[in-house]
Amino acid sequence: MKKIPVAVLAATGSVGQRFIQLLDNHPWFEVVAVTGSERSHGKTYAEVCRWLLAGDMPAWARNLPVLVSSPDEVQVPLAFSGLPADAARDIEPAFARAGTAVCSNASAYRAEADVPILLPEVNPDHAFIIPTQREKRGWSGLIATNPNCTSTGMTVALKALQDAFGLKRVFAVSLQALSGAGYPGVPSMDIIDNVIPYIGGEEDKVEWEPRKMLGAYRDGRIELADFGISAHTNRVAVSDGHTVCLSIEFVEKASPAQVAAVLAAYEAPEIARELPSAPKPAILVRGEDNRPQPRLDRMTGSGMTTVVGRVRPDSLFDARMVVLSHNTIRGAAGGSLYNAELLVQLGFIQ
Amino acid sequence: MKKIPVAVLAATGSVGQRFIQLLDNHPWFEVVAVTGSERSHGKTYAEVCRWLLAGDMPAWARNLPVLVSSPDEVQVPLAFSGLPADAARDIEPAFARAGTAVCSNASAYRAEADVPILLPEVNPDHAFIIPTQREKRGWSGLIATNPNCTSTGMTVALKALQDAFGLKRVFAVSLQALSGAGYPGVPSMDIIDNVIPYIGGEEDKVEWEPRKMLGAYRDGRIELADFGISAHTNRVAVSDGHTVCLSIEFVEKASPAQVAAVLAAYEAPEIARELPSAPKPAILVRGEDNRPQPRLDRMTGSGMTTVVGRVRPDSLFDARMVVLSHNTIRGAAGGSLYNAELLVQLGFIQ
Amino acid sequence: MKKIPVAVLAATGSVGQRFIQLLDNHPWFEVVAVTGSERSHGKTYAEVCRWLLAGDMPAWARNLPVLVSSPDEVQVPLAFSGLPADAARDIEPAFARAGTAVCSNASAYRAEADVPILLPEVNPDHAFIIPTQREKRGWSGLIATNPNCTSTGMTVALKALQDAFGLKRVFAVSLQALSGAGYPGVPSMDIIDNVIPYIGGEEDKVEWEPRKMLGAYRDGRIELADFGISAHTNRVAVSDGHTVCLSIEFVEKASPAQVAAVLAAYEAPEIARELPSAPKPAILVRGEDNRPQPRLDRMTGSGMTTVVGRVRPDSLFDARMVVLSHNTIRGAAGGSLYNAELLVQLGFIQ
Amino acid sequence: MKKIPVAVLAATGSVGQRFIQLLDNHPWFEVVAVTGSERSHGKTYAEVCRWLLAGDMPAWARNLPVLVSSPDEVQVPLAFSGLPADAARDIEPAFARAGTAVCSNASAYRAEADVPILLPEVNPDHAFIIPTQREKRGWSGLIATNPNCTSTGMTVALKALQDAFGLKRVFAVSLQALSGAGYPGVPSMDIIDNVIPYIGGEEDKVEWEPRKMLGAYRDGRIELADFGISAHTNRVAVSDGHTVCLSIEFVEKASPAQVAAVLAAYEAPEIARELPSAPKPAILVRGEDNRPQPRLDRMTGSGMTTVVGRVRPDSLFDARMVVLSHNTIRGAAGGSLYNAELLVQLGFIQ
Repeated sequence: MKKIPVAVLAATGSVGQRFIQLLDNHPWFEVVAVTGSERSHGKTYAEVCRWLLAGDMPAWARNLPVLVSSPDEVQVPLAFSGLPADAARDIEPAFARAGTAVCSNASAYRAEADVPILLPEVNPDHAFIIPTQREKRGWSGLIATNPNCTSTGMTVALKALQDAFGLKRVFAVSLQALSGAGYPGVPSMDIIDNVIPYIGGEEDKVEWEPRKMLGAYRDGRIELADFGISAHTNRVAVSDGHTVCLSIEFVEKASPAQVAAVLAAYEAPEIARELPSAPKPAILVRGEDNRPQPRLDRMTGSGMTTVVGRVRPDSLFDARMVVLSHNTIRGAAGGSLYNAELLVQLGFIQ
Repeated sequence: MKKIPVAVLAATGSVGQRFIQLLDNHPWFEVVAVTGSERSHGKTYAEVCRWLLAGDMPAWARNLPVLVSSPDEVQVPLAFSGLPADAARDIEPAFARAGTAVCSNASAYRAEADVPILLPEVNPDHAFIIPTQREKRGWSGLIATNPNCTSTGMTVALKALQDAFGLKRVFAVSLQALSGAGYPGVPSMDIIDNVIPYIGGEEDKVEWEPRKMLGAYRDGRIELADFGISAHTNRVAVSDGHTVCLSIEFVEKASPAQVAAVLAAYEAPEIARELPSAPKPAILVRGEDNRPQPRLDRMTGSGMTTVVGRVRPDSLFDARMVVLSHNTIRGAAGGSLYNAELLVQLGFIQ
Repeated sequence: MKKIPVAVLAATGSVGQRFIQLLDNHPWFEVVAVTGSERSHGKTYAEVCRWLLAGDMPAWARNLPVLVSSPDEVQVPLAFSGLPADAARDIEPAFARAGTAVCSNASAYRAEADVPILLPEVNPDHAFIIPTQREKRGWSGLIATNPNCTSTGMTVALKALQDAFGLKRVFAVSLQALSGAGYPGVPSMDIIDNVIPYIGGEEDKVEWEPRKMLGAYRDGRIELADFGISAHTNRVAVSDGHTVCLSIEFVEKASPAQVAAVLAAYEAPEIARELPSAPKPAILVRGEDNRPQPRLDRMTGSGMTTVVGRVRPDSLFDARMVVLSHNTIRGAAGGSLYNAELLVQLGFIQ
Repeated sequence: MKKIPVAVLAATGSVGQRFIQLLDNHPWFEVVAVTGSERSHGKTYAEVCRWLLAGDMPAWARNLPVLVSSPDEVQVPLAFSGLPADAARDIEPAFARAGTAVCSNASAYRAEADVPILLPEVNPDHAFIIPTQREKRGWSGLIATNPNCTSTGMTVALKALQDAFGLKRVFAVSLQALSGAGYPGVPSMDIIDNVIPYIGGEEDKVEWEPRKMLGAYRDGRIELADFGISAHTNRVAVSDGHTVCLSIEFVEKASPAQVAAVLAAYEAPEIARELPSAPKPAILVRGEDNRPQPRLDRMTGSGMTTVVGRVRPDSLFDARMVVLSHNTIRGAAGGSLYNAELLVQLGFIQ
C-alpha cells in the first residue's frame, strides 16, 4: 500500500510537534510538508522548531522546509491542523476548498452544523455529514474536527453510559495539565505551589461539545443530545493528562458495579475498532481506590485509552467516577490521526 | 488580664507546630505544657520536634519538656489537640473528665450528638450544647471540635448563602494541599507531575460535617440541615490552601450578583466578631476571573479569611463558585484557637 | 522627618512590584510616581499591573497614574529602577543627568568603572566613587547598582571569609528560583519535573561581580579583587530563593568551625548596620545538616538575611557551604532600597 | 538459547520494581523467584507490591509467590539485589556462598577490595577480580555491585576524559531526583517549592566510587585512581534523572571541542558493546546550550545512555559540563542487568 502524503499545518507548535512524533512510522500516512508562521518560511523544520517532547525530533522531519499554510504552496489529500483557532478560521476552509481533507485540532469550526466533531470510538457515523458539508460549501475536501482535550475522555466514558442507561445530568470538574495551554503557555510562577481555577473559554466547550458528539446523526443533521452539563475547569501542576471528576444522573438507575461493567465492556463501533490509532482497550476501568493518576496512567494504550476509576455511587446523582485522558495524544494530535484513519476507511480521503 | 495557661497535645506534629506558631504572643493564652509520643518524653521540644514551618520555632517553646498526653501529667483549663483520631478517642475525654476544655482538631468526636463542630463565624450557638455534654458525660471540662479542613471554608460560604437563599443541593470538588496529610504524609513520588484523586475518609466528612454545622441548635439538640452534598476530593501539588469548586442549588433563585453581594456582606455573629483570631473579613469575594489561587490568596486575613471567587451561574444548579481556605490555619490550628476564644467569651473556659 | 519622594521605574514588572510592596510604609521614602511601558501610559497602576505577589497591591498605589520613564515627566531626587537592561542603558543616565539618584537593579551599568555595585553590608565605601562618577559624566544625580541576584548572597558570605582568611578560588553552583526570570519568565512546561542547567549570561555575572564588590576602593578607583570564580547556574522548580553551593580555597587555612564562627559573627560596617532595610542578622549560620532550604529559610530577616549552612571541609579546597538568599528581596528590590538608604546616610541623596 | 533463571531480591521496593520492569522480555534472563520482607511471605507479588511505575506490572509477575530472601528458599544461578544496605550485608554473601551470582545495587560491599563496582562501558576488566573474591571467601557464586546512582553517569563521562587527557581534580555538584530516595522516600512537604541541599552519605560515595572504578585492575588488585573529587549533593523536585555539574582539571590541556569530540566518540570496551542492555550510544553529547534536561533527556537510549551537554571551558580548571543519567535505570536496576550480562559473557555466570 502506498502511503498517503500528508501535511502538518502549524507543525512547530506544541500540537504540531505531537503530530510529527505520532506520524513517525505511521503505516498509512507520510509527512511531505510542514507549515509554520511567516518568520520560519524558507528555513528547515530543525532550524525553527524548538522541540519540546522527550526524545529527539524524527530524522526525516529535520530537513523539511517550513512552508506557508496555504493550498497555493501545499497540495495534499490530507492535512493535520495544529493551527490556533483564529488562523484556522481562514486557512482550513482554503485547504478544504482546494480538495484537502483537513483533520483539525482547532475549535474554529466545531460549532458549525455541517462540521463533525469526531471521536471514532463514539460517533463515527457523524462523518456521514461530510457530503452535506461538501455540497453546501462547494468543497472537494473537508473539515473534520476533534473535540477539546477536556471533552475527549469524558465523552468516551459518557457514550458507554448513554448507550446503557441514558444521560440526564452531568457535573464535571477538571484538573488539567499544563501542556493543554501550549507553549510557552502557563508561566511557571503561576503554577508552582498553586492551582489556577480558570481556563478561558474552556467551560463553554466542555458543556457543549459532548452534547454534539453524543447527539444523533439523522438525515444530514446532527442533533444535540438532550442532557445537561455543568463544568468547572482548573489548571494544575501536571505536564500531561487531564483528570475529570464526574457525577452523573442517568435516565435509568444503575449500580456502580453495572456502571463499571458497562465501561469495561465498551468497544468502538466496528468500523473504528481496528484502525492503526484505535485505543486498546477503548476504556480501561481501574479498580484501585486512588487511580487513575496522570503520571501513572496517561500512557495507557499509547496515550489513546480513556482510563476510568473510582466508580462509586453519588450522593446526589447516580454515579461518580474519575476519568483520565492524555490531552495532547488522545485529546489532540492522536485524536486527529484516528479521525483521519476513520475518514480513509470510510472513503472520504483517497 | 492574666493569660490562661494552655497545653498543646501532640505538639510535635504538623498541626501541633501550627498551634505553637499561632500561640506565639497570643493575647489571651500562654502555652505552659506540650505533649508528644512516648519516645520524646523527658526531652525538650527543641530536641524532638523537627520544625517544618518557615521561620524558627518560638524561643519560649524550645525548652518546654515534652510530657505524656495525660491529665495525670498535665493540668490546665484549656488544651489544644493535634492528636490523631485514634489517640484522641481515649485521651481527649480523659482531659475533659479532669476539667480541661479540649479544643480539638481530631475527627474522633465530631459525629457525637453532644459534641459541637464549631466555626465561630457560622454556628457559635452550637456551643450551647456543652452543658448537655457535661451533664450527660459527667465532665467538668468539655470537648469542642473544629471541622475537617476541607469542610471549613465551604461551610463558611454556605452559611451566608443558606441564610439568604436556603440550600437544596451542593456539588463540591476539592483540590487539596499536601499539608493536610500531615508529615511525612504524601510521598513526593506520588504527587510530582501528578494528581491523586482520592483521600481516604475525606468525602464522607465533607458530605456530613457541613450539614451538622449548618443545622439548628434547639433544646439541647443539633439538627442536621436538610440539604444534600456530593463531594469528590483530590490531592494536588500545593503546600497549603484547599481549593473547592462548588455548584449550589438554592431554595430561592438568586443571581450571581446577589450571591456575591451576600457573601461579601457576611459577618460573623456579634459574639464572634471581635475575638483575637476572628478573620477580617470573614469572607473576601474576589472579582478577578482567575482567583482565588492558593499561593496568592491563602494568607488573606492572616490565613483565617475564607476567599471566594468566580461567582457565576451554574448550568444545572443556581450558582457556581470557587472557595479557598488555608487548611492548617483556618482549617486546623487557627480554627481551634478561634473556637477556644469563643468558649472563653461564652464563659465555658475560665 | 519629611519623607523623600521617590519614583519606581518599570513598576509593573516583577521587580517593580517588589519595590512597591517593600516601599509600603517605608520610614524614609514615599512613592510619588510610577512608570511603565507605552501601552500603560494614562492608566492607573491598578488598571495595568497584573499583581503577582501574595497579598494585595497597597491601596495607595492603585490610583497612581503610570507615567513615561523619562525625567521630562518624572522629577524626583530618588528613583528605583526595575528596568530591563536594554531600556536602562538610555533611561537611567537621563535621570542621573537630571539630578535623580538612580538605585538600579539592572545590569546595564554594573561593569562601568565609575558605577558602584553596592551591598551595604559588604562595600559601602564603594559609594565614594560617586563624586568621580558625577564629575566625569557631568551628572548631578547618580547611578548605583545592586548585583545580580545570584551574586548577592554569596558575596556577603565571601566578604566575611575574605576579611578573615583571604580568598584564592571559589567554585559556585547555583540552584535558582523561577522569580529570577521575571514574568512570564520560565514556561511551566520547561520546569515541571525538570531542571534547566542554563541561565543566559548569568555565569559571567556571577564570576565577575563578586570580584568587583570585594575589590578595594582607592583614589577614585575600584580594583578587582584578586581571586578566581567558576560558576555553573541552574534553574529549579522553586518560586523564590537562590541556593548556591560553594567550595572555597582560602589564602590562610581555616577549619570549618572557624569558618562558621567568622560567618556568624559578621556584621555590616557601622554606617550600614542600623539602616531601615539592614538585615538582622547580616548572616545567619544554621547548624542542621539539611539547611538552608528555600521554602523554610528565604524569609529570614524579612528576606534580607544571607543564610549559610552545611559548613564543612572541602575535599579539594578548604571549605564547603551552602548559601541561600531571597532573590527578589535581598537580591533585587530590597537590595536597591538598602542601597538608597546608605546613599541617604552618606549624604548623596537629599 | 535457554534463558537463565533469575531471582529478584527485595522485588517489591522501588529498585525491585524496576528490575521486574526491565526483565520483562529480557532475551537472556527469566524471573523465577521474587523475595520480599517478612509480612509479604506467602502472598503473591500482585498482592503485596504497590506498583509505582507508569504502566502495569508485567502479567507474569503477578502470581509469583513472594519468598524469603534466603538461599534456603531460593536457588538460582543469578540474583538481582534491590536490598537495602543493611539487609544486603548478610543476605548477599549467603547467596554467593550458595553458588548464586549476586548483581547488587546495594552499597554494602562496594568498598570491599575484592568486590568490583562495575560499569561495563567503563571497567569490565574489574570483573577479573572475581576469582580472587571466590578464592578468598570460599564462594562458588559472587557479588558484583553497580555504583551509587550519582556516581554512575559522571564516571562514564570521566572515563572517556581520563583515557584522553588524564584527570587531576573534579568538582561535582548534583541535582538529584526523588526516586533515588526510594519509596515513600522524600516527603512531598519537604520538596514542593524547595531544594534539600543534603543527601545522607551521598557525598562520600560520589567522592570515592569513581576513583575505584577508574582505577587500574592489576594482579588481583584494584588500585584507586589518583585524582581528587569534591561533591555537593542536592535533592530537587524531579521524578527521575540525576543532573551533575562538573568542573574538571586534566593532566593534559584540552579544548572544549576536543573534550566534546572525545566524549561523543567514546565506545564501551568491545566485550561490553553488544550486550542486550548496552547503551546506544554510550555517551550522547548534546549541542544545545540548555541541555541535558531530566524530563527531556533521561530516557535517551532507553534510559541507559549517559547524556552530556554544555561542554565549555572552566574559569578555574580546564572544562565544565553537565551530565545526566537515569538514576533508577542506568544508575540502578538497568546497571545491574548490564553487569549480569557482562558476567555471563565473561563466563562467570552459567
